Amino acid sequence: MFKLDETLQKDTFFIADLKICRVLLMNNANFPWLILVPKISNAVELLDLDFQTQCQVLQEINIVGEILQTTFKPYKLNIAMLGNVVRQLHIHVIARFQDDTAFPRPVWNEARVEYSQAEAQEIIAKIKSALK
Amino acid sequence: MFKLDETLQKDTFFIADLKICRVLLMNNANFPWLILVPKISNAVELLDLDFQTQCQVLQEINIVGEILQTTFKPYKLNIAMLGNVVRQLHIHVIARFQDDTAFPRPVWNEARVEYSQAEAQEIIAKIKSALK
Repeated sequence: MFKLDETLQKDTFFIADLKICRVLLMNNANFPWLILVPKISNAVELLDLDFQTQCQVLQEINIVGEILQTTFKPYKLNIAMLGNVVRQLHIHVIARFQDDTAFPRPVWNEARVEYSQAEAQEIIAKIKSALK
Repeated sequence: MFKLDETLQKDTFFIADLKICRVLLMNNANFPWLILVPKISNAVELLDLDFQTQCQVLQEINIVGEILQTTFKPYKLNIAMLGNVVRQLHIHVIARFQDDTAFPRPVWNEARVEYSQAEAQEIIAKIKSALK
């Protein structure tokens, strides 16, 4: 039984469920930042999944990565699985810009600026519609 | 024609060439830290590669990830493609420990401690032998 980690739940907005992963929007207005969470109970490392499932996760990384590229035209995507704090397997897919508040540093450990309700709803609607 | 980025060249030791990726050891004694560089000229985003090649890269991430797990017994692997500084596509595969010098922070932007020649040679030999 898959249950989303409480920290991820608290820090993100739900966007959609794909075949393997739940797609979340990180509540940080400084970066277009999606998180994919494979809906597989007790998954910690990508390597723990069978290779076919790993490739399906990769396919979903491609899908949301391309949506970020099309929607935001970033300089670079940052794709990462860290899990030092939240152990539940999750993949960060982040659109980075040379003039964003952290560049060229990674985005973790930067101050977080929450979205307004309206801003979040606008981005969620955009991503959701692109996922269709 | 594939040519390794100069910064990667300067900051790492060569370990081996796999089918798709060159395997490098980051010259930072604080973390067992490998870097995979797909030997594909002008690659920047993983999404730029055809999906079959992406899956081959993923397979090689699995190979080196499992070697890090077996050799160092880390608490967690950190796997990341950032590319904010070095634009050539490269994948970080890092063994993290709850008592390492950065934990739970990510390893980028931490002070770097270079290996002694002997230490580097020992790790390179271990990884090389495990790759066989």
